[in-house]
Amino acid sequence: MKRIAFLLVAVAAVAGVVAFTAPPSGHADEEAAPIFGVKIPSGYRDWRLISVAREEGNLNDLRAILGNDVAIKASREGKLPYPDGTIIARLAWSYDPLEESEKAFGRLQSFVAGPPKNGVQFMVKDSRKYASTGGWGFAQFNDGKPADEAMHNTCFPCHGAAKARDLVFARYAP
Amino acid sequence: MKRIAFLLVAVAAVAGVVAFTAPPSGHADEEAAPIFGVKIPSGYRDWRLISVAREEGNLNDLRAILGNDVAIKASREGKLPYPDGTIIARLAWSYDPLEESEKAFGRLQSFVAGPPKNGVQFMVKDSRKYASTGGWGFAQFNDGKPADEAMHNTCFPCHGAAKARDLVFARYAP
Repeated sequence: MKRIAFLLVAVAAVAGVVAFTAPPSGHADEEAAPIFGVKIPSGYRDWRLISVAREEGNLNDLRAILGNDVAIKASREGKLPYPDGTIIARLAWSYDPLEESEKAFGRLQSFVAGPPKNGVQFMVKDSRKYASTGGWGFAQFNDGKPADEAMHNTCFPCHGAAKARDLVFARYAP
Repeated sequence: MKRIAFLLVAVAAVAGVVAFTAPPSGHADEEAAPIFGVKIPSGYRDWRLISVAREEGNLNDLRAILGNDVAIKASREGKLPYPDGTIIARLAWSYDPLEESEKAFGRLQSFVAGPPKNGVQFMVKDSRKYASTGGWGFAQFNDGKPADEAMHNTCFPCHGAAKARDLVFARYAP
C-alpha cells in the first residue's frame, strides 16, 4: 500500500513537471497517426534547432527542423545512422512579407513565418519497430489531427532520396 | 585547505558541465562589439526558436531567430515591451538548393541552410544601460569577430521601423 502511495506521488510529480514544461502546441494525448502509430511528442516546440528551410512552388513555406536531445547530438556530430530514440520535427509556416522591413529597406525583401502551414511532421527512429521503412516511423498532423493513410504512404518513398543520409534531408546548421 | 580543494573540485565540475553543454559556436570570452559592448552570449545556439525568416535580394539568406528563456516567454506571450534580460539572436545561412529534394520532387524547389552568412546578430534588453537606443543594445559578429562601429550605428535607426513592436521584427511562430 505504501509502495502504491509512493508511486502515485511520483507519477503526480512527473505529470506536474510535464504539464509545466509542455508548450501550448504539444499535447501527449493526441490521436496517433496511421501506419506508424506516432503521436505528437509533448513539448516538441521547445526542442532545439537543427536547421531552417524554404519550399518554393506550391508548398510555398518557411520551415524549421527541430530535434529532441538525441537528434541534436547526432546531427551536430554528423554521425550516421541516427540512433534509436531520435525524433525530428518539421514545422512550417506561410511565407509572409514583412511590412516593417519594407519601410526600413525601401523595398520588399524580408519574408517571415506567418500562420502554420503544410502541417507538422515527425520522424521517429526505432530500428526494430520500423525495420521495414529504414528504421523510421513517419507522421504528419494538420491542425493537430493526423493526416490520412494515403499521405503517410508517401513519406518513406520520398525520403528514400536521402538514403545516403539515413533518410534525413536536414543537416545541422552551425 | 580543505575548503580550497572543495572549491577547486566544484569549479572543475561546473567547468566540465559548461564545456559539455556549450555548443561550438558560443564562447563567453569573445571580444565585445563596439558602442553597446555586447559579447556573444555563451550557448546561444542551443536557445529555443522564436521564428524563421528569409532575406531575398543582396542578403539572400535563410534565418533563425532564437531567444533566451526571457525572450521566449515574452515573445510567446506577445507582451510588449520586452523585459530587461531579454536576448534575441539572429542567425543566418546561405540559401542553398537541396539536391536530394530535386530527386524526390523531380524539380528544384527545396532550399536549405548552407554555411553561415551575413554574421550573427544580438539584441540585448537593458532599459537603463541602453536608454538612448530604445532600451536595446545591438551587436553583430562576423566569423566570431565584432563588426565595426559604422555598422553598429545602423542597427538602431533600422530597427526603428519596428517601433510599434519594441524594435523587434520577429514575432513568435506558433
